[in-house]
Amino acid sequence: MATTGPKSKALQTNMEVDYVVVYRFTDLDKQTAIVTFEKLIQALSSVGLATEVRNGGNHSVLVFTRVASERHLYGEVYRSRVKDWLHGVRTTAPPKEIRQALQVEPLYEAERLRIIYQLITNPVTEGGAGITPKEGEWKNIESVFPLHDHAYNKDWIKKWSTNYTLNIEDLDEIRNRLGEKIAFYFAFTQSYFTFLVFPAAFGVAAWTLLGHFSWVYAVVNGLWCTIFTEYWKHQEVDLGVRWGVRGVSRIDVKRRDFKHEKRVTDPVTGETVEVFPSTKRLQRQLLQVPFALAAALILGSLIATCFGIEIFISEIYNGPLKSVLVFLPTGILTTVMPILTGILTNFATQLNRYENHETNGAYETALTRKILILNFITSYLPIFLTAFVYVPFGSLIVPYLDVFSLTVRPFAENEKQMQVPTSGFSINPARLRKQVIYFTVTAQVVNLGMEVIVPYLKRRGFAKVKEIQSERAAKNGTASINVAENDPPEEVAFLERVRSEAELDVYDVTADLREMVVQFGYLSLFSVVWPLTGLSFLINDWIELRADAVKICVQMQRPIPWRADTIGPWLDALTFLTWVGSLTTAALCYLFANDGIGPNGTPKSIQGWALLLTVFFAEHAFLAVRQVVRVVISKLDSPGRQKERRERYLLRRQYFDESLSEIRQLPTMEQAAEHIDRGTLEEEARQSTLRGYSVEGAFWARQRGWRETVQVGAHLIERDGMAGEVKKTR
Amino acid sequence: MATTGPKSKALQTNMEVDYVVVYRFTDLDKQTAIVTFEKLIQALSSVGLATEVRNGGNHSVLVFTRVASERHLYGEVYRSRVKDWLHGVRTTAPPKEIRQALQVEPLYEAERLRIIYQLITNPVTEGGAGITPKEGEWKNIESVFPLHDHAYNKDWIKKWSTNYTLNIEDLDEIRNRLGEKIAFYFAFTQSYFTFLVFPAAFGVAAWTLLGHFSWVYAVVNGLWCTIFTEYWKHQEVDLGVRWGVRGVSRIDVKRRDFKHEKRVTDPVTGETVEVFPSTKRLQRQLLQVPFALAAALILGSLIATCFGIEIFISEIYNGPLKSVLVFLPTGILTTVMPILTGILTNFATQLNRYENHETNGAYETALTRKILILNFITSYLPIFLTAFVYVPFGSLIVPYLDVFSLTVRPFAENEKQMQVPTSGFSINPARLRKQVIYFTVTAQVVNLGMEVIVPYLKRRGFAKVKEIQSERAAKNGTASINVAENDPPEEVAFLERVRSEAELDVYDVTADLREMVVQFGYLSLFSVVWPLTGLSFLINDWIELRADAVKICVQMQRPIPWRADTIGPWLDALTFLTWVGSLTTAALCYLFANDGIGPNGTPKSIQGWALLLTVFFAEHAFLAVRQVVRVVISKLDSPGRQKERRERYLLRRQYFDESLSEIRQLPTMEQAAEHIDRGTLEEEARQSTLRGYSVEGAFWARQRGWRETVQVGAHLIERDGMAGEVKKTR
Repeated sequence: MATTGPKSKALQTNMEVDYVVVYRFTDLDKQTAIVTFEKLIQALSSVGLATEVRNGGNHSVLVFTRVASERHLYGEVYRSRVKDWLHGVRTTAPPKEIRQALQVEPLYEAERLRIIYQLITNPVTEGGAGITPKEGEWKNIESVFPLHDHAYNKDWIKKWSTNYTLNIEDLDEIRNRLGEKIAFYFAFTQSYFTFLVFPAAFGVAAWTLLGHFSWVYAVVNGLWCTIFTEYWKHQEVDLGVRWGVRGVSRIDVKRRDFKHEKRVTDPVTGETVEVFPSTKRLQRQLLQVPFALAAALILGSLIATCFGIEIFISEIYNGPLKSVLVFLPTGILTTVMPILTGILTNFATQLNRYENHETNGAYETALTRKILILNFITSYLPIFLTAFVYVPFGSLIVPYLDVFSLTVRPFAENEKQMQVPTSGFSINPARLRKQVIYFTVTAQVVNLGMEVIVPYLKRRGFAKVKEIQSERAAKNGTASINVAENDPPEEVAFLERVRSEAELDVYDVTADLREMVVQFGYLSLFSVVWPLTGLSFLINDWIELRADAVKICVQMQRPIPWRADTIGPWLDALTFLTWVGSLTTAALCYLFANDGIGPNGTPKSIQGWALLLTVFFAEHAFLAVRQVVRVVISKLDSPGRQKERRERYLLRRQYFDESLSEIRQLPTMEQAAEHIDRGTLEEEARQSTLRGYSVEGAFWARQRGWRETVQVGAHLIERDGMAGEVKKTR
Repeated sequence: MATTGPKSKALQTNMEVDYVVVYRFTDLDKQTAIVTFEKLIQALSSVGLATEVRNGGNHSVLVFTRVASERHLYGEVYRSRVKDWLHGVRTTAPPKEIRQALQVEPLYEAERLRIIYQLITNPVTEGGAGITPKEGEWKNIESVFPLHDHAYNKDWIKKWSTNYTLNIEDLDEIRNRLGEKIAFYFAFTQSYFTFLVFPAAFGVAAWTLLGHFSWVYAVVNGLWCTIFTEYWKHQEVDLGVRWGVRGVSRIDVKRRDFKHEKRVTDPVTGETVEVFPSTKRLQRQLLQVPFALAAALILGSLIATCFGIEIFISEIYNGPLKSVLVFLPTGILTTVMPILTGILTNFATQLNRYENHETNGAYETALTRKILILNFITSYLPIFLTAFVYVPFGSLIVPYLDVFSLTVRPFAENEKQMQVPTSGFSINPARLRKQVIYFTVTAQVVNLGMEVIVPYLKRRGFAKVKEIQSERAAKNGTASINVAENDPPEEVAFLERVRSEAELDVYDVTADLREMVVQFGYLSLFSVVWPLTGLSFLINDWIELRADAVKICVQMQRPIPWRADTIGPWLDALTFLTWVGSLTTAALCYLFANDGIGPNGTPKSIQGWALLLTVFFAEHAFLAVRQVVRVVISKLDSPGRQKERRERYLLRRQYFDESLSEIRQLPTMEQAAEHIDRGTLEEEARQSTLRGYSVEGAFWARQRGWRETVQVGAHLIERDGMAGEVKKTR
């Protein structure tokens, strides 16, 4: 089992390294480079990190860091846990004895790495080294990353590729290794995958038995989307408790770029704080509206143009090269769209920065929202155009499409080939289905390929280029540029591995989440067009989950294990897409009943009021059903919730037991009752004599003790009977 | 100032009485009556209450109770406060020294009365006397109520009737005297009243300048309703913190009538608990749907019938007695409607009991929801019928109305008078406005009158009857039935007052809240018909607030001061009404543009799709705006929120200071850094020698201390330059 070659050895040990800091000094002169380097090492050392430096190649050095003393690290861990407790993330304070605290709740790898990363990057005022990669005075720090655990990664991928489903322990493993944020992504995708089994099966049945645009499928699918969304919300809480992170999103981390407008004294803490008026931020946030409109307009006109060209060529044009020209719009889209999206994303980031959010969480949420808008436009607008513009208004619009004859003029043989037929043009109802199939199958496969295979080829290519370069260098006798030249022989393989990991990309979990949410959108909005959508996604996501694991292990640097207690703004996106789905699905069902053919075989005449009534009814039925689903799901118990309640209960009991001694010392009212008949009353009577006569004193002095009250009462009851009899006898 | 007559004296002192227990033994034989009475006095005495008994008249006795020892009561107060703290209602635990606890936070009257009431009514197992008025073995306990504080009440009414507005101190006063639940009602009504100033002013302007069915008014009114609803939610939190009750609705009080189905071991606490499966309850709750449908059908057909008759008589019938007969439907409604509503309310209560809720809170919320449905039907359905059935479909329906000719047949002189005109019938657009004015002015005034004047007259009438009875009795020489006969002379006036208070009704705050919410509904749903609605409500509510104060002081027993941190399900009702308002207002604006007359003067032809598009657009605009309003309002700070944050902050600081000593003992990573260069490393090196050779040990041993790392790094940087130069020179 133990291969002893240097390569496998290099994969087996990380040399106890916690983080690797890449320092690239390409744009610095030697002197400055050395000064900055010294500052870096000093900063790292000042927070208790031991350092080793090695050559990184290509004008860079690699600084290896590890915690100098484990005992000291535990202090940091304890501090972090106490802070969690004070912010309400933990119900109970960690035991005061550190050794005990670590025994009760052992340090897991992600926690360790997170704490060390914070030690490196936190500002000096908060006890960190203040090293901010790529920013300010640390702009030459290219990256700070932990090393992959190759043995674990190998097991992980092997296990996943042979198992059909992932269970909660697999997710726990990810959480322990890669942190809660990434674990939440996998938990979400796994949960989504499990849920997909139903629409996949039902979709196949609907496709076979009910045909397209079936009302039954639409209702079942809408219900499924709602249940999934609400159930995930429920599960998020559960996982948050399980992983001890519930509430971490409330711990605000101040943004480094936040610019305050004034300093005010906090009315709560009395400290001077830097603030930016939220009214001003709200005003700036209003810029989102023109931004969204502009983005919709720009991307929309691009999509609409390509769409128009495509229809013109495929449905009207009748000349040579038709089969080639039909790919023209796709060509335009695939080249222009990424550029436009890039520009708009850049603009969105600028806008987001201008909004000047105070915390990292708020900044990221706002940015995600903006990017979501762009994503929705690019993902769903083409199908929207086909379904709600081309189909109902097709025969009105098509005659105007001859403006696009421009695109085929060079190839046409005569004018007639480009002329819109004056009559007889009818919409192509298969177009919508083809488009949906394209987006839900072809695009998904292409996407997966882009994600996994392209980076693999890229890496192979780069490696090849380097190999050729060094071979040529060796041939030319300039072997001195070989970075590995001075490496100690037993470290060669290890350093080679680290150098290649340093060149990898940084993993961005939000991109993967976005992909899943956009996919969910197709299911919710358009799957009624082609009920096999669910099946396609089921297969795709089984692979996707494994491909993402491979991606993290092989193609990316090991991610910094951040914490999270939710998938964040994506959750709102899910809710929103489910809602919109109730509208589109109803509209599609109405428009394409009988595949868009009316009862007498001619194209169906669409009644505006009937369409709107259908949509209106469907939407409100959806909202009512969602309310019911929410209520039902809120009644469900779960292990996480039980754990939370148990912790609260134990805490309460503990406090209660603590106060019990206090409470026991207190006289109860029952004890008071025992005294009433005895000394107290005489005492009170004496007191009242001393105070002199009072109406109140006299009132309460008439019956001493409860026995007298009973006697007097009994007498009154007797007499009342008498009075009654007097009355009766009268 | 101090009038010394016995009457005013009786008003000034409450004889230090905390609660009066009315024990009526009409249906018991003497012996049983005495035994039960003894049990009552013993139970009261067992929880430390001193008792005095007096004749109550009409086969009843009055038991006066007060706390036997203040010192003992403080124990109960402390216990209650600790319980609050454990349930998260208070941020901080009360100080352990009771005297100190009461100094920091003095006992207020409502708190005192609440705790004593709980002492009387709580089950024996929870340390109470277990006295449950009107239920089970205590069914002869007619009521348990505190005595009015007449001096305060007089001041209160005087102050309010001379002030235009109420400020927060006035609300604090109510909270201190009558408890948070009632204070929340007054706070809500006052807040609503203040907010009403705007729609009143704008309504007058719109009425003068814009006419009816103005789009501008509709938009502004919708916005106002949204802002008010969201702002009130914000304010509720604030008041909850101010009054220290935030979270009390989470303290579950188990319902006495709850029937468990099985006993299970709680997975959290390990105790055996009685449960009723929530799936079963959900099934039972589904009965609400047929109930709501049946109620809508029954009440709807009554309303529709009366509506039909009214239209038939007022618009078609042309015979004698028309002016009298036109009131026939109103007559039917006012007699049959209360009976039907009573039956349905009774049914709703049965249904609610059948749902078997576990806590009092859940029971009340569910009941309120059911009664809300009934209220909505009776309040809004008539206007709905006029606006959305009579107006658009009037000319289709009217011909069928001759079924109602039945009602006027006895009076008609010939068939022609009852015949529907074959042509020329047109809807009466003024009908809708008249109806809205009826509901928003006439009905409100009538309601106010019913609430204040009728009970007053009733009380005067009863008093008169009694006077006559006793006069007659005196004449007949049977003076022995005079209850006051044996009263001690100095107590005569006081006891007379108590006896009359014992006969008063119990105040129900939810009825008053319901009235306000229903009123808000008219504003939200229909005020576009008649923009003066706001003005009418402004005037009405100024009086309403004062009338309610008078009602509580004069016409009702002093209420038990319960706690609350919200107006409960009414809040959902507000949100719901605002939402529906966006639909109805848009529909009304479309239907009645130009008072329902089309551009060419003839009745407007209504386009189904245009109407639906209008409603669809309005609703989604509303939902978007509401989201924005929510975000903006959530950014607002408030004194209560600041108080809460301050308390949390102080608590956090306190805990932190407590753990600080722990943390200080911990070594920091910075301290670790100091050691690195010195002993530790030699020690580590020695350790590694002892452990034998390891790759990791060798890796970290290459550079000892950060200075060595800097040296090696500087060397690497220098050399890197060299390599570059080699390259360059090549």
